[in-house]
Amino acid sequence: MYDLIIIGGGPGGLAAGIYAVRFGLNTLILERSEISGQIALADVVENYPGFPAISGLELMEKYKSHAQEAGVETKITEVLSVHAEGNKKIISTDSGDLESKAVIIATGANPKHLNVPGEKEFISKGVSYCAICDGPFFRNKTVVVVGGGNSAITDALLLSKIARKVYIIHRRDRLRAVKILQDRAFETPNIEFIFNSCILEILGSSGNIRRVEKVIFKDLKTEERRELATDGVFIYVGIHPNTEIIDVEKDEGGFIRTDRFLETSQKGIYAVGDCRDTPIWQLVAAVRDGALAATAANEYIESFKKETT
Amino acid sequence: MYDLIIIGGGPGGLAAGIYAVRFGLNTLILERSEISGQIALADVVENYPGFPAISGLELMEKYKSHAQEAGVETKITEVLSVHAEGNKKIISTDSGDLESKAVIIATGANPKHLNVPGEKEFISKGVSYCAICDGPFFRNKTVVVVGGGNSAITDALLLSKIARKVYIIHRRDRLRAVKILQDRAFETPNIEFIFNSCILEILGSSGNIRRVEKVIFKDLKTEERRELATDGVFIYVGIHPNTEIIDVEKDEGGFIRTDRFLETSQKGIYAVGDCRDTPIWQLVAAVRDGALAATAANEYIESFKKETT
Repeated sequence: MYDLIIIGGGPGGLAAGIYAVRFGLNTLILERSEISGQIALADVVENYPGFPAISGLELMEKYKSHAQEAGVETKITEVLSVHAEGNKKIISTDSGDLESKAVIIATGANPKHLNVPGEKEFISKGVSYCAICDGPFFRNKTVVVVGGGNSAITDALLLSKIARKVYIIHRRDRLRAVKILQDRAFETPNIEFIFNSCILEILGSSGNIRRVEKVIFKDLKTEERRELATDGVFIYVGIHPNTEIIDVEKDEGGFIRTDRFLETSQKGIYAVGDCRDTPIWQLVAAVRDGALAATAANEYIESFKKETT
Repeated sequence: MYDLIIIGGGPGGLAAGIYAVRFGLNTLILERSEISGQIALADVVENYPGFPAISGLELMEKYKSHAQEAGVETKITEVLSVHAEGNKKIISTDSGDLESKAVIIATGANPKHLNVPGEKEFISKGVSYCAICDGPFFRNKTVVVVGGGNSAITDALLLSKIARKVYIIHRRDRLRAVKILQDRAFETPNIEFIFNSCILEILGSSGNIRRVEKVIFKDLKTEERRELATDGVFIYVGIHPNTEIIDVEKDEGGFIRTDRFLETSQKGIYAVGDCRDTPIWQLVAAVRDGALAATAANEYIESFKKETT
């Protein structure tokens, strides 16, 4: 039996691992793939103190090698479910069951869908949720970015260097992104803003090679329906937490409810980073959460030892 | 008037500055000296993800240059008090008054005193709270370390490489430090443990050149008073928050009470890092707190703008 199993190898999970190993806990991180964490998809990270500008992928590599040097064990597997049996936690994976005294859920979150006709149909055929992954396919083409937050504007700026023309379609009359990003976007000549508007449908070619050709959107002030020819649609309308594997208290958005020490409604099970009811979805918050949950898990395991011996 | 004044230039204050500038806030950090933050005194930091091992001073330099590159303005001055006048915050300093819309308190904490006879008298004459500052004066000498937490053991390990002999005197029957540090200390031949004991008095030579010569301690189990000859006494018995400059709600230890967004009992005044009621006194927690408080302060200032225009 492990002392601690951490589910998810993004920044929160790796930080938890670094701390747990220092406490002397026999710790295993389960990750779905070699590189985890939404941050790995970020073109440039400018707000993790210590690194003025670093790519998300490079930062994740640094976290991974830090964790490895500290002695964290990792295993690539898909977790199916987590439940408690008395004081023991059972983690079911696609390669069998594992047991531990405590669990940290660090499963992160994924982009939300718009849920409009054509969206699912054209995923990877013009519809994308990640400019750094799919941007290079749109050299000298036209793209639409949907959303007004930091992710939308960061990726619109990245796309403006690749595509000929970037339209930002946003439901509100102003952006939600931080001012520095807004300023950069407003100064970029090939970015054009369409405010107070929402996408109704994504349309494309039929036949063997299907591709996005246009979007239909509604002007929310005039109720007018309009069309816009585009080769790609990049969608940034929020995030959905990956919390289906566990049955603990969650908020209406599916984010796991946690107390001050990041314990969930089940004793000895903690949640960190983007999958919990965090006040900010930020890299540095996930890292801090990992440190805090590992500290709390260590105290829980210590008390548990005393009880059972 | 500044949008935001941050009091303290340690990790929490600098992280807040990096975030605030990205929000477009007109921001000033007030610091007492060129290099702030207790972490600058750390020999080696192994638990800030991204840097497997880095000196505290080097890490602080990285934070400072990151903040400078981001465009954070700093001023060296001593803050005397902070209070609100309506929506305006007044920060009194030894070089005059400053005004801002929001304030972040990032003043950190300092080592607690033992409060035994001889302690004050022999500060810098053998009594110290920082091995990295004063350790080199004890080459091939005998030192006593008081405490059993991470700071005590980290510094005892550092001192064991300089001094001939290190005694660790601790009130309890076991250490509170993380296991990895305990293991290292137990394996170090010139470290000797004196458990269940507390210092009663620090004694030294009189005359012109006064120096520590011995400590008197009590064995808490046998009630026996004992003497130990030593050249130095390094004290690690907790921390005291630097929160005297502001009158907001605090806990019994003087740590500032904060809500989920790190707002204090006064609107528009936030507290971050070691000076607040944090669940962990850790570098990465101070950095995350700075990011969160800057985010909350930005939203507060935005709402305030709307009200007043």
